[in-house]
Amino acid sequence: MAAADRLDSMTLDERCINTIRFLAVDAVQKADSGHPGMPMGTAPLAYVLWDRHLRHHPQHPDWPNRDRFVLSAGHGSMLLYALLHLTGYDLPMEELKNFRQWKSKTPGHPENFITKGVETTTGPLGQGVANGVGLAIAERFMAARFNRDGFPIVDHHTYGIVSDGDLMEGISHEAASLAGHLGLGKLIYFYDDNEISIDGSTDLAFTEDVDARFEAYGWHVVRVEDGNDLEAIEAALEAAKAETGKPSLIVTRTVIGYGSPNRAGTAKAHGEPLGEEERELTKENLGWPEETFLVPDSVADHMGQAVARGEKLEAEWNERFARYADAHPDLADEYKAWQNGDLPADWDADLPTFDTGSKLATRAASGKVLDALGPKLPNLIGGSADLTPSNKTDIDGRDDHQADNPSGAYFRFGVREHGMASICNGISLHNSGLRPYCATFLIFSDYLRPAMRLSALMGEPVIYVYTHDSIGLGEDGPTHQPVEHYMALRAIPNLTLIRPADARETVEAWKAALQNTDGPTALSLTRQGLPTLMQTEDGGALGLHQGAYVLEDPGEGDPDLILIASGSEVQLALAAANTLRKSGTSVRVVSMPSWELFAAQPQAYQEKVLPPAVTKRVAIEAGVTMGWERYVGLQGRIIGLDRFGASAPGEVLFEQFGFTAERVVEEARAVLDG
Amino acid sequence: MAAADRLDSMTLDERCINTIRFLAVDAVQKADSGHPGMPMGTAPLAYVLWDRHLRHHPQHPDWPNRDRFVLSAGHGSMLLYALLHLTGYDLPMEELKNFRQWKSKTPGHPENFITKGVETTTGPLGQGVANGVGLAIAERFMAARFNRDGFPIVDHHTYGIVSDGDLMEGISHEAASLAGHLGLGKLIYFYDDNEISIDGSTDLAFTEDVDARFEAYGWHVVRVEDGNDLEAIEAALEAAKAETGKPSLIVTRTVIGYGSPNRAGTAKAHGEPLGEEERELTKENLGWPEETFLVPDSVADHMGQAVARGEKLEAEWNERFARYADAHPDLADEYKAWQNGDLPADWDADLPTFDTGSKLATRAASGKVLDALGPKLPNLIGGSADLTPSNKTDIDGRDDHQADNPSGAYFRFGVREHGMASICNGISLHNSGLRPYCATFLIFSDYLRPAMRLSALMGEPVIYVYTHDSIGLGEDGPTHQPVEHYMALRAIPNLTLIRPADARETVEAWKAALQNTDGPTALSLTRQGLPTLMQTEDGGALGLHQGAYVLEDPGEGDPDLILIASGSEVQLALAAANTLRKSGTSVRVVSMPSWELFAAQPQAYQEKVLPPAVTKRVAIEAGVTMGWERYVGLQGRIIGLDRFGASAPGEVLFEQFGFTAERVVEEARAVLDG
Repeated sequence: MAAADRLDSMTLDERCINTIRFLAVDAVQKADSGHPGMPMGTAPLAYVLWDRHLRHHPQHPDWPNRDRFVLSAGHGSMLLYALLHLTGYDLPMEELKNFRQWKSKTPGHPENFITKGVETTTGPLGQGVANGVGLAIAERFMAARFNRDGFPIVDHHTYGIVSDGDLMEGISHEAASLAGHLGLGKLIYFYDDNEISIDGSTDLAFTEDVDARFEAYGWHVVRVEDGNDLEAIEAALEAAKAETGKPSLIVTRTVIGYGSPNRAGTAKAHGEPLGEEERELTKENLGWPEETFLVPDSVADHMGQAVARGEKLEAEWNERFARYADAHPDLADEYKAWQNGDLPADWDADLPTFDTGSKLATRAASGKVLDALGPKLPNLIGGSADLTPSNKTDIDGRDDHQADNPSGAYFRFGVREHGMASICNGISLHNSGLRPYCATFLIFSDYLRPAMRLSALMGEPVIYVYTHDSIGLGEDGPTHQPVEHYMALRAIPNLTLIRPADARETVEAWKAALQNTDGPTALSLTRQGLPTLMQTEDGGALGLHQGAYVLEDPGEGDPDLILIASGSEVQLALAAANTLRKSGTSVRVVSMPSWELFAAQPQAYQEKVLPPAVTKRVAIEAGVTMGWERYVGLQGRIIGLDRFGASAPGEVLFEQFGFTAERVVEEARAVLDG
Repeated sequence: MAAADRLDSMTLDERCINTIRFLAVDAVQKADSGHPGMPMGTAPLAYVLWDRHLRHHPQHPDWPNRDRFVLSAGHGSMLLYALLHLTGYDLPMEELKNFRQWKSKTPGHPENFITKGVETTTGPLGQGVANGVGLAIAERFMAARFNRDGFPIVDHHTYGIVSDGDLMEGISHEAASLAGHLGLGKLIYFYDDNEISIDGSTDLAFTEDVDARFEAYGWHVVRVEDGNDLEAIEAALEAAKAETGKPSLIVTRTVIGYGSPNRAGTAKAHGEPLGEEERELTKENLGWPEETFLVPDSVADHMGQAVARGEKLEAEWNERFARYADAHPDLADEYKAWQNGDLPADWDADLPTFDTGSKLATRAASGKVLDALGPKLPNLIGGSADLTPSNKTDIDGRDDHQADNPSGAYFRFGVREHGMASICNGISLHNSGLRPYCATFLIFSDYLRPAMRLSALMGEPVIYVYTHDSIGLGEDGPTHQPVEHYMALRAIPNLTLIRPADARETVEAWKAALQNTDGPTALSLTRQGLPTLMQTEDGGALGLHQGAYVLEDPGEGDPDLILIASGSEVQLALAAANTLRKSGTSVRVVSMPSWELFAAQPQAYQEKVLPPAVTKRVAIEAGVTMGWERYVGLQGRIIGLDRFGASAPGEVLFEQFGFTAERVVEEARAVLDG
């Protein structure tokens, strides 16, 4: 039978599915790079989901009540691009032909900041699993807050496709265990159970009973024994939607590289083009014409109907929202304000104030700020990875978010730092105005670093509250004492680290974090008490917003020496300056809570604070010295800690490791004499 | 009844258990810091394990065939210190009284480099779970290699205590899933199921069915319904030992802070001293005398018998080993050589050589090195987190390590980076001469960072093979392209990062990694091909061992300008130098593969390579610029990438992001003119 005839003899569904498969095959082949096997295997389930279930509006991808779809197995990006193209998103064929090329809208892995319709950036395995949990939490929280009888304003599903690689990653455990605990009934994942990973058969390393594991988490598990059986997929989706008290995992047995005579079911199908010859054989095998990037008219027509469906869905929702706004005008206004990302006019009216000289840990000051913000910002939601009493992140008067209390705004994430951060990305990605924060000890920023990097890459303004930020935490010892972490965080593009020096700077740090909507902010806070520093005439701690500012200055003209410090070490700089001043040295003290905020200032401001002519400089920070040469040059000195900490009371450690005013004076004199 | 009478009326077992409990209570109280609740709850199970099962030699803690014990819940360190003290390790009472103080042998969390008898450093949750898997793998591998009929030279169990916090962490999933897959029958963990975490009841966040989850991983799960029921604990241990084909989890229902009238079973018992008053009430409640740090003579006598038992165990083993050495002299010699950490005389005899100008990715060169090392170093074992074909880490002629092939030396870790690294720590901690390596993409060093930090803290010489080390990987895009990672790795104390510039430097990098026995080494390798650079007269790539060396020099005297680069950017420096030289500039090119190796050189060497008088310098590295000021000062320039990458072919990205010889020339001229 000729190819064209065989095309005619296919059902419309088969034609649609093969179109998706071969768009992926052809794009990967043209790019000579990419992953054809996953789209070839999952095209049927993706088609059933997108054609029959997904409620979205391709011409208005930001419609707030759309279903969310997360391709956790991000290497299968061409599956998503094919679906977006075919259902009418702004992703023309030219872009598919430009797969993985400079400035295309079809990067190697899906990037939500590049391609409309992509809900989240995936590729690093396991992240999508947790992002979806965050999206589902956001939906449930928003529904609980805004929906009223007869007005399901927020009411959608979160779907996803996860791979064996996703499920091997630890983050999948953390996120799935919490999703089960919370009973997220509108979260539905397909598990693309293709029995193949890069090294070969999953039998090499992954023989756990995934179904039993997810049942142990409290999930509803459904099986599809043949990933090409559309009715079985349909039935599984219906069963998943019918179970509203538990998240669902649809374990679908698929064949990676389905249709490829020599590569189907092998690791070879995973991460490289089929090659010209195998592509031809595959098209022949599945009865597909040789023409590349083929979209039969019948397929374009059928799948393009998503546009009209989407218009209708949104029109209905708009009409419903209008009636809702009549019935509940205040709620509707609040909903819109959240969507717009507006901070209420008086959001910072009740922030705490502190007396100079009073002593408070910056984590405690942060707790007071949160208590003050809570009533003003109900959209500021978050929690801790089981360190609430230490992180001080609960908010007076708020309930826990639990399965039976979806309007609760405080989250008990459990000892699941990585899942927590990635879930917060998901909450933020819901784009409904929620501002998630999450907390752990600074040392454990290492546990969640991959998710925090994605906050930065995607520009999601998650707020990371890191307490116990130095050897000052004391007795818990080196496993709990960050030393390399300030620099390791500063190294991440688009992440703003703020290490406030006292309670007043902590207030400003929170303000800066909330005003930063383009990326994540990390707050580095002490366990130990710090004195509240004096106010300067020009606004004192307000200088935090410039990243660094002159805290104490001898007066007119350039000083002899500049002492630069952050966080708990600023008090040492002030004490040392006092001593140095007595012996006639003209010393400036600069508080530098944030490198990133400082780097964003005009050069004139930077040079006002750190005049290039003043090369005698000493930096003090209880972390590795690497990097401080940026501000003290090769002539300055850096008082830091280029080793791991130790277990002893914090004040003993500061003394033993040379973080004393005396040492600062000594190093300053050496610089002055140098 | 008076306390002394009640003490007499206790069984000896009860007396021993309460001694452990109150040593913990008293030490925490004296330190005014620490975690009493865990030791109070787990003292019975720990006592049964240590008193009746653990085969160890307190006076010779390094006896190679000892059972290993891992306290994954490291915050309960006083449990371990009490056991070590009572069973005769070199940990006198003075040390217990000095708990958590400067220079004591009883730091806040167990540190294996401080306290004899502590097998691994724990505290960051989940790490011990995976370390134990590594220890059990090492035991099984060593047994398969060295044991012969009648000579079970390597034959011991690995025990551990894990907490709910451990099991919430993602790494516990990764490690447990792999342990189940490998059928590690001699791995036995107690799960301290006390239903309490820091935030409160585990009902707040952790309601998964742990038993079913571990059964899904292929574990043998045993339950102890009452953690004070010594016979039930005993029976569970017997059942666990009887199951030799699966790892065992003994789920033990305990009470945190057992015995404390007002704190038992609450989060309050977890992380702070009981307080004087509650301590008294607790002693009263359990019938314990008020005397602090009390060890009744009967307890000291009974538990001290571990010393004589240990002597006998080791004597028997020594005798067995002597007969083994007679029967299998070559094996015995090899066993001893491994234990001594000797590299065989000809270990580097067959390393590959490369022709100048030939082009090879450094990951491919690394693969050739591994193939050459394989036959020489059977103790060099490792694998990849499901990226074997990309990381090139398999070794010709080696089999996979699997449940049915315990002598296999290649490990299929699955997509479990974090578990992989922590397991490699465990393999290294076995101290039997095994040199573990593990591999993933450099970007995913973020996923395993907490475990790598512990390699560095403990000084375990795990070798991390990180390929795809820059935007040069191309199309996979920013989620896969490291930019901040070189600096983030350099920030970790005691970790050596090496980024070789070509195939020859890659050979030297492996040699340096193997010769570094005091800490981990990370190799940063390219996906893309790099030209093999010319040899210099003084040894060329051998200069890698000094961290940085002069690759090309104008001759006598100081040059006008120094170009410094690492890895794939060294070729750009060479090309730019060529252009600059034509216009009369005297240019030195320095290859700087390792900051840490360079910093370890005498100042004279450092100044020979980078003469202080030459301040015109340009650094080139395809990562963030932060930190390079250390070598170029504030007058130099840095060609780096202070943003995330993009999806496109690698060569396009290098061009677009300014990593070209032309750009280097341009920046160099700006510096020269500056």
